Amino acid sequence: MTQEVFLKARPQGELRAADLGLREQALPPCGDGDVRLAIRYVSVDPFTRIFLDEAVLGAALPGTALGAVLPGAAVGEVVESRSPALRPGDLVEGRFGWREAHVTPAEGLRKLEPALGDGRAALGILGLPGTTAYGGIVTVLGIKPGETVIISSAAGGVGLIAGQIARCLGARAVGIAGGPAKCAMVLEHGFDACVDYKAANFEQALLAACPGGAQAYFDNVGGKVAMAAYAALGRGGRVALCGLLSLYQGEGGDEGDLGRFMRLIMSRGLSIKAFSTVGLNQPAALVDLARWMEEGRIAVPETVVDGLASAPDAFVDLLAGRIAGKLVIKVS
Amino acid sequence: MTQEVFLKARPQGELRAADLGLREQALPPCGDGDVRLAIRYVSVDPFTRIFLDEAVLGAALPGTALGAVLPGAAVGEVVESRSPALRPGDLVEGRFGWREAHVTPAEGLRKLEPALGDGRAALGILGLPGTTAYGGIVTVLGIKPGETVIISSAAGGVGLIAGQIARCLGARAVGIAGGPAKCAMVLEHGFDACVDYKAANFEQALLAACPGGAQAYFDNVGGKVAMAAYAALGRGGRVALCGLLSLYQGEGGDEGDLGRFMRLIMSRGLSIKAFSTVGLNQPAALVDLARWMEEGRIAVPETVVDGLASAPDAFVDLLAGRIAGKLVIKVS
Repeated sequence: MTQEVFLKARPQGELRAADLGLREQALPPCGDGDVRLAIRYVSVDPFTRIFLDEAVLGAALPGTALGAVLPGAAVGEVVESRSPALRPGDLVEGRFGWREAHVTPAEGLRKLEPALGDGRAALGILGLPGTTAYGGIVTVLGIKPGETVIISSAAGGVGLIAGQIARCLGARAVGIAGGPAKCAMVLEHGFDACVDYKAANFEQALLAACPGGAQAYFDNVGGKVAMAAYAALGRGGRVALCGLLSLYQGEGGDEGDLGRFMRLIMSRGLSIKAFSTVGLNQPAALVDLARWMEEGRIAVPETVVDGLASAPDAFVDLLAGRIAGKLVIKVS
Repeated sequence: MTQEVFLKARPQGELRAADLGLREQALPPCGDGDVRLAIRYVSVDPFTRIFLDEAVLGAALPGTALGAVLPGAAVGEVVESRSPALRPGDLVEGRFGWREAHVTPAEGLRKLEPALGDGRAALGILGLPGTTAYGGIVTVLGIKPGETVIISSAAGGVGLIAGQIARCLGARAVGIAGGPAKCAMVLEHGFDACVDYKAANFEQALLAACPGGAQAYFDNVGGKVAMAAYAALGRGGRVALCGLLSLYQGEGGDEGDLGRFMRLIMSRGLSIKAFSTVGLNQPAALVDLARWMEEGRIAVPETVVDGLASAPDAFVDLLAGRIAGKLVIKVS
């Protein structure tokens, strides 16, 4: 038997912990070529929210079915192997979902180096947040030394890594985060400036932090914060659209002036590119990220929550902006 | 003395002919290195409207000053030359503005080949509309054979040329225009389909014209029409933002749902690039455009209006969508 978190009710607007359920499920047998995993850590990421709607961001891609296990990356330890590729004790990373144990084909799993310790880094700097941040800063934006890049949700896993990568490349990183505590944390991680989007003078403070206009914007949030960041770009500014955190919680988010948004794009000659890690060059990213991590140039504070039963509340807190850095659930 | 059209009053929302004035002005002397021109044709283009506001598209760039001559490209005949570069009878093209005669340094003027006849093509296919269309289709979008590209304001000068260039490259061109007459004209120019944005079933008709989703969108209008075109793009679709005709007439245009717009960009992984002809490779464009024009593969119907006194009304009609193809004023 294994414990797992599943989608109990389709969230209407803001996710409530009660929309998610916890249940025991029988584990399927470990067949030929399979491994049985004891899950150690489950990654909880803001973008998981978009998969809980009926259609992902209103597009044709269907979301998670009612009753299905919550999707997400996780690190598991092999406890039984019927494949020559993996041995008991090996750590692997994959999209195992929010569960305690899992049986899956060994083929295609990412085996973690023993040097990675308990493997949690494979869910952070050396996982989806790290390769996503790298893809945005390096592949999509092509950040060069001396450029200024604005990063929203800068206290989140992806944003915090993105700013530190920009710094490693010799660029200026200007973060946007909610509240003084998060802004202080962002500055502690080497950002050149961090602006509080909850402050009354937010738009002016952002403009002041980008004298002459920023060259690039790494967008994790969309909405009004994105509008302010677009307005702080100079001519020919580039935007990497990575996420829309401010728009995930339901059908709202229609605030803001579409005409003003389009005029900004036109009058400044901006380029915008939406991206996901799919199709980005992950092996190259992992080499650079591992080196920068070893050199102490990239770090991400973690919030580790104990047990799957606590995961729904932690996810709600994450979406409400009450958790900074990377959130992981310690499973067993 | 020369007659000229000037900005009499700052337009509030929709341009009225009374916002523009006609006056006689003394011509400055033709100094050393100068030429005196008799203007033959003045180009009237939708984007001229954005230069009549206090700030261009709300950005830092100041618009035309009150009392200044209307800006725009024109073709003039040299009637006096104090430069070895040009002789009386030569035709030149440049940003001379809306006037009957002009004195300007000869240096940097574009001298037209005698083969171009009266030089009107230098304001259309071989002018700003042509090089803009080419820049969007070839340089920004990189259209390939077999791709489907949607083009808004397809009955306008730029849009009509853009679709024909796409066809020359072996792509499918789907136009968007207002009303059955314009749609018929667009189809006569070889577009594979044309959808009427004033029709009740506009959005569905556009989707039906782009089975499987279009690969690219050449945007001349912004606003609601752009939203529908974005929705008709497939994954990884590219957008060249060339103009925002639907948003030029004043501070309005805030209709539409910014959240839905951002979700479309994110969920389909779109790329958007605003551009202007500045910085695009015009000589290469002109070679291709001249060849296609000679081969009869690109043509643009012209509306020729007589006399500068008629120009204000013609400009109002153009902005209101009552004129198809390229509008020029025949001056003398």
